[in-house]
Amino acid sequence: MADTWVFDFQDGDATDKAALGGKGAALASMTQADLPVPPGFTITTDACRSYQQQSVFPDLMWKQVEEAIGRLEGLTGKEFGSSENPLLVSVRSGSAVSMPGMMDTVLNLGINEQARVGLARVTGDDQFAWDSYRRFVTMFGEIVLGVAPDRFEGAVKATLDMNGCDTPGNLPADALSGLVDRLKAIVYGQSRHEVPDDPFEQLRLTVGAVFDSWSNKRAQDYRNLNGIPHTLGTAVNVQAMVFGNSGPTSGTGVAFTRNPTTGEAHLFGEFLPDAQGEDVVAGMRTPLPIDHMAETFPEAYGQLLEIAGRLETHYGDMQDLEFTVENGKLWMLQTRSGKRTGRAAVKIAVDMAASGLIDERQALQRVSADQLEQLLHPLVDPAVEVEVIGVGLPASPGAVSGQIVLTADAAVDLSEAGTPVILVRHETNPDDFHGMVASRATLTARGGVTSHAAVVARGMGKSCVVGCSNMRVDFEKGLVRFDNVVLAAGDWITVDGNTGRVMAGQVATIEPETDEDFDILMGWADSHRKLGVRANADTPEDASEARRLGAQGIGLCRTEHMFFGEERIAAMREMIMAPNEVARREALAKLEPYQTADFEGIFTAMDGFPVTIRLLDPPLHEFLPNEQDLARELTDLKLRLRLLNGLDDIDRLLEEIHDREVVIAQVQRLAEENPMLGHRGCRLGLTYPEVTEMQARALFTAAVRCVDRGITVMPEVMVPLVGFEPELRTQAELIRSVAEEVFLYHGLRVEFLVGTMVELPRACLRADELATVAEFFSFGTNDLTQMTLGMSRDDSSRFLPGYVQRGVLPADPFQTLDIAGVGELVRIGVERGRGQRADMKIGVCGEHGGDAASIAFCHDVGLDYVSCSTYRVPVARLAAAHAALA
Amino acid sequence: MADTWVFDFQDGDATDKAALGGKGAALASMTQADLPVPPGFTITTDACRSYQQQSVFPDLMWKQVEEAIGRLEGLTGKEFGSSENPLLVSVRSGSAVSMPGMMDTVLNLGINEQARVGLARVTGDDQFAWDSYRRFVTMFGEIVLGVAPDRFEGAVKATLDMNGCDTPGNLPADALSGLVDRLKAIVYGQSRHEVPDDPFEQLRLTVGAVFDSWSNKRAQDYRNLNGIPHTLGTAVNVQAMVFGNSGPTSGTGVAFTRNPTTGEAHLFGEFLPDAQGEDVVAGMRTPLPIDHMAETFPEAYGQLLEIAGRLETHYGDMQDLEFTVENGKLWMLQTRSGKRTGRAAVKIAVDMAASGLIDERQALQRVSADQLEQLLHPLVDPAVEVEVIGVGLPASPGAVSGQIVLTADAAVDLSEAGTPVILVRHETNPDDFHGMVASRATLTARGGVTSHAAVVARGMGKSCVVGCSNMRVDFEKGLVRFDNVVLAAGDWITVDGNTGRVMAGQVATIEPETDEDFDILMGWADSHRKLGVRANADTPEDASEARRLGAQGIGLCRTEHMFFGEERIAAMREMIMAPNEVARREALAKLEPYQTADFEGIFTAMDGFPVTIRLLDPPLHEFLPNEQDLARELTDLKLRLRLLNGLDDIDRLLEEIHDREVVIAQVQRLAEENPMLGHRGCRLGLTYPEVTEMQARALFTAAVRCVDRGITVMPEVMVPLVGFEPELRTQAELIRSVAEEVFLYHGLRVEFLVGTMVELPRACLRADELATVAEFFSFGTNDLTQMTLGMSRDDSSRFLPGYVQRGVLPADPFQTLDIAGVGELVRIGVERGRGQRADMKIGVCGEHGGDAASIAFCHDVGLDYVSCSTYRVPVARLAAAHAALA
Repeated sequence: MADTWVFDFQDGDATDKAALGGKGAALASMTQADLPVPPGFTITTDACRSYQQQSVFPDLMWKQVEEAIGRLEGLTGKEFGSSENPLLVSVRSGSAVSMPGMMDTVLNLGINEQARVGLARVTGDDQFAWDSYRRFVTMFGEIVLGVAPDRFEGAVKATLDMNGCDTPGNLPADALSGLVDRLKAIVYGQSRHEVPDDPFEQLRLTVGAVFDSWSNKRAQDYRNLNGIPHTLGTAVNVQAMVFGNSGPTSGTGVAFTRNPTTGEAHLFGEFLPDAQGEDVVAGMRTPLPIDHMAETFPEAYGQLLEIAGRLETHYGDMQDLEFTVENGKLWMLQTRSGKRTGRAAVKIAVDMAASGLIDERQALQRVSADQLEQLLHPLVDPAVEVEVIGVGLPASPGAVSGQIVLTADAAVDLSEAGTPVILVRHETNPDDFHGMVASRATLTARGGVTSHAAVVARGMGKSCVVGCSNMRVDFEKGLVRFDNVVLAAGDWITVDGNTGRVMAGQVATIEPETDEDFDILMGWADSHRKLGVRANADTPEDASEARRLGAQGIGLCRTEHMFFGEERIAAMREMIMAPNEVARREALAKLEPYQTADFEGIFTAMDGFPVTIRLLDPPLHEFLPNEQDLARELTDLKLRLRLLNGLDDIDRLLEEIHDREVVIAQVQRLAEENPMLGHRGCRLGLTYPEVTEMQARALFTAAVRCVDRGITVMPEVMVPLVGFEPELRTQAELIRSVAEEVFLYHGLRVEFLVGTMVELPRACLRADELATVAEFFSFGTNDLTQMTLGMSRDDSSRFLPGYVQRGVLPADPFQTLDIAGVGELVRIGVERGRGQRADMKIGVCGEHGGDAASIAFCHDVGLDYVSCSTYRVPVARLAAAHAALA
Repeated sequence: MADTWVFDFQDGDATDKAALGGKGAALASMTQADLPVPPGFTITTDACRSYQQQSVFPDLMWKQVEEAIGRLEGLTGKEFGSSENPLLVSVRSGSAVSMPGMMDTVLNLGINEQARVGLARVTGDDQFAWDSYRRFVTMFGEIVLGVAPDRFEGAVKATLDMNGCDTPGNLPADALSGLVDRLKAIVYGQSRHEVPDDPFEQLRLTVGAVFDSWSNKRAQDYRNLNGIPHTLGTAVNVQAMVFGNSGPTSGTGVAFTRNPTTGEAHLFGEFLPDAQGEDVVAGMRTPLPIDHMAETFPEAYGQLLEIAGRLETHYGDMQDLEFTVENGKLWMLQTRSGKRTGRAAVKIAVDMAASGLIDERQALQRVSADQLEQLLHPLVDPAVEVEVIGVGLPASPGAVSGQIVLTADAAVDLSEAGTPVILVRHETNPDDFHGMVASRATLTARGGVTSHAAVVARGMGKSCVVGCSNMRVDFEKGLVRFDNVVLAAGDWITVDGNTGRVMAGQVATIEPETDEDFDILMGWADSHRKLGVRANADTPEDASEARRLGAQGIGLCRTEHMFFGEERIAAMREMIMAPNEVARREALAKLEPYQTADFEGIFTAMDGFPVTIRLLDPPLHEFLPNEQDLARELTDLKLRLRLLNGLDDIDRLLEEIHDREVVIAQVQRLAEENPMLGHRGCRLGLTYPEVTEMQARALFTAAVRCVDRGITVMPEVMVPLVGFEPELRTQAELIRSVAEEVFLYHGLRVEFLVGTMVELPRACLRADELATVAEFFSFGTNDLTQMTLGMSRDDSSRFLPGYVQRGVLPADPFQTLDIAGVGELVRIGVERGRGQRADMKIGVCGEHGGDAASIAFCHDVGLDYVSCSTYRVPVARLAAAHAALA
């Protein structure tokens, strides 16, 4: 093995993709199945690896290549450089994983002056021979000798103009002859290298260039970005040319064995008569739908249908085929797994499993989490071209269009009049809540994916893009400025919450749909996965939707979101402005009925499933109006005071000024340098135990009422931001004592758990101590990531995208868990927690709970469940199944 | 042993403080050294522990007590309850560690109607006998039966008034008799318990009460707070009474074997003739200086001097003595190590070591870090009473007074006129720098101990208190409001940077002084410690001072502090406002000469020692003016524009408005939700490599120039806030390439290291990866604490003090390292870092580098050095010696 660097297609081990590359393995497989494949051979990835280390071809390799060419000459009856019957070959790179950025294909290699003559003689087509030469010189110059493509353009265009032609393939032979000379001269001028005449020299240089292209910058960057080892190397496939461009009985095409958009089981593809593959790519001629071949190439088409079926059966997956017809004869050039839409992926997987071609497990593995997600939200139609005017963070998925509104009130007014609107703000705060409800989407210039706008939008399942940093809103003039585009209130805009893109105008979208196939696949996922899947849901409506999507409980109910409604926020602010505990308790008493009713609704929706309720978490200032808005109002009021003529309004004005000043003073008192690290979570509960009391009373009262109505409730009370055991112990004691009071009062007991959100590095390190109190853990990986990486999700937009691009980080750590860092803390937390309390129920409730790679980690580390945004529940179910099958 | 619960003083093992308690061991020791100690016995802590578990006295204990009383009767010739010659005893608790909150002392136990008669008979003093009875009933009622002291006050006052007396001790016998009856009635009324007549019953109840007091809430809280195990238990000492109040030849006193304030070697103390110890405590009579005894009690005084010398020699430490003279005879009641000031501690330790009484190691252990610190800064004179009007965070030590100024400019004007001023602000920013320079201290209402004011003040060694949250500055009216006090600009105020206290007016302070003894002790510390001690210093002046205080290098030079000077901040802002890289480089070029000069000065000051230079760390917006100030200015300008009559000023006004708007826009662009977790540290260096380049060029140029001048430089370039290996690698490559450029240009090389600040949890977890690049680590435990605990130092003032008070946390984690949490990450970082690079130099450069407990941890975990604020260098040297000796 070690000294065999070259395998003929009929000899290679078709299962050894690592050595032959994907393309080489497929060619070997097809050849050995007696499909019509032009003969050829593969130079292995081992040769490439050796070349990478030694900078020269390994010993014997070139000799083996020469021998393989010899065999090829024997098989085809053609000869390299022959003026009688010349052998031309294609040279294609092919690594084990498909990878853009590498040198790809050189066609017609072997052509030179004699071979051109030979080719003209064999085909009887002088023009064709010259055109083949032209194609070779162009590709060799560009790909092997590194000539920039635009260097050729002038010469080509001049020749075309002179001959009144639109494509070089139509030029007459003599024009092509002149063009070939000019192209050769350009190659030499640019690279100081002649295009060699010796076919072996052509081949030697081309193989070296393919090997070199493995380590060019683009390829390296791509591998860094996608975590592909640099040591894989690429194989090189050398194959006898067949010519789809040798006249009207020839052609070339690509075909999918099933429809890659819908998944329907019929051959789907395109065919271009009298053409080589590159002509299809160049797009200068429009190919025909593949079923046209049934009339024009009936025999080849019949054979293609039969081969397509065989290959699909052989590989057990929908195939993407490349083929050429040369003078009526079908030649297969490539087969590989075909890319497909989410809808097609589901249908193909379910159909194939139904027909017994694959089993359930394989069917599950055929559909990726990304593909599944396409089925759940409106997408920008990939077929249309869009002009992106801004890019922000995709905070809540869905692509929607609407007319721009700049205030919450305008959103309500217009939407009530039936106009679809999109709310555009610098950032949102609780005052904008009703405007977000009225809008189809929200777009903000500032903030991250945990900002107010993002969290509220996700809670409502509405599209949202935040942190669109090249956008400025000019409220005075009613304009929204992007880099080169200025839109006005009332203009149409499209917001793509799937990708973060912002587009002017109305862009065509594809509406989501799920069908029976989807339900079947999800059923299989549920039967294979080990991880439970819960939803993060804060309202009864959200809980019902989560249940419909298959959530087995709520892993995170953020109670503070219940305070953002119009009447509630007033009571909440009263609580915050309260000068003492008595006043605070009065305000809390107003909030309690709302919370009780919400909890009752959520418990009812989740009848029979656990509901994890997190106590108040954010710092209190988040519930107060924005300081700058207040200051602006105050300035206006004071100005009015100064300019006042009469005395009628003075009292009212002075009162308004006083009110503002009181609120501003409190806002300033509560202001924090770093609210993420501030007075929040259980720290609030320790400072204001009456808040914890109110929340506990509301939730246990709701639980008791539900039980009374025959509902099965399983509350799990979660104390947030715990770093020290005494914090948790104090809050747990308070919660349990309130529970006893409520149960005693109602004469009814409810089983419940008290646990904690593990979201501080310290909590992971001291999980053993926390586990003496906590009956469950839920890893809050959002905040845990922020703390562990010292990276604010809201503020990282200025550097994080660059980090991911340059490979400092493999992925956005707020989307995909940083397993090496944050993951290690999770692992420590699980070990130490279970070390203290072996049956500890442990879940994850950050955004990562809906991310496939992170779910795989959660499975590996032995968590009981993941909890994610409602809309990602199906994705999580599938990803959990993938993890179990891995 | 297990069954011996009681030891006579002459029998107990004087070295077994655990069993006998501190007081019992001292009494045993003195008794066995034949000093005049009233006889008695000790009930062991074992008995207390057993009682805590069983709630009854252990078997045999009471029998042993009765036997010991029998022996006591034999020794004294007195008898319990005797009407001839009654035995009275004192009962005192005494655990192994001194502990407030526990039941302390009951005197005259054994007195009843017969014993009173007997006492009067023996002493011939009826009044004395009744007074002794009064004292017993009061103490027994209060301490054993829990009667509130104020319940007795009415009866005592009425009796005093009726008899025209001012203290109960002067009441005539019959008045005392009536008072005793009334006191007994009050005891019964309050407690429903009679004061028992049986002396054994008195003793039984008192011993039980002492045992119970071990677990009362105050004692438990104290132990929780001070980390004292609850299992220690307390001993009880029962001792024959001697009466300092039995007439003019009697008295009682306390004495220190050396002066506890200055450390001078002469007996120092107070003596109160004809009094019991409680009279001294009650403070109703003024004691005399102890040398008065030389005249009035020459014999007892001589004996006391001799005993003081013997005890000091025996214990090898300055002793705090309690004694009584009864009818001319000296009785020793207690000896223990005496509390002393820092100055005395140093002098006593050095003197005793010089005289050979103790060795160097013991001398070092005799001086605590806190005591040493007293010598380094002005203190509020502990002798004066102060009215504290506000309390903030002690950000930079020193107690100073000055007149209030509210703006930086006013500070400069007044201080130039010779007025000592204190700058009072809500918070400071770079614009206030010159005002801070001009002021003696800075006081702010907001911000934590890493806020701008705090960091700058520490850098200058000026006193500073920040986050004084009950203070509001009213700039319009020129007032500073505290809860109940309003001061105006120009009023005197005193700021205590040692404790955070704020006082109105000028408060007397004690100026710091170090002397030869200090230097000697520091020399010993240096020869015993293993840890290196470096300083955090940002200027040449600071570096010189650090060196003078014994720093062996700079562990943290914060380059950004060099940008706060008036001209520099202008260039810095120009850099930040620069629209593109070219403009940014131009602004950086203006900053470079300043940095180069600063580095040169610092290297020069630290000739021969390493200097760790941290690259730019804070987010850029910290260098811009405050947004609210800008907005206020803008509003004013716009208002002026509206009110403008003529047209003369319009252009200038419009221009000023435009300027403000541009800066505000940039401030807003750079604003961050959580700057601590934002675009800072190496993230800046990756986004703007030209900043790193400038800094590297400045520091290497400075190094080369120094070498040229014969200075030995050892630069260590530190990349801040690294979480991922590629961050460090990229920056390190840039730094090394700039170094090569500079060295090539100057034809001179300098050895240097590149390392990283380990301040993110992720950096600790992935220290092995970082160590592939880093040549040194410096743990930035300030930020590491903030991230690990998810707790912003600036914002924690609203809950952290309560946390410490309630024992959620043993200490402020920003002062004393949270060893269980943050410490574990440090440990992991050290292990993994050295696992990759065995000889890795590792230090600590957070505030913890100057905290004794944290330094002990740094020693244990194997760090090479600690680096702390300049002013704490001596403290760190001593603490490092303590750690090495532990």
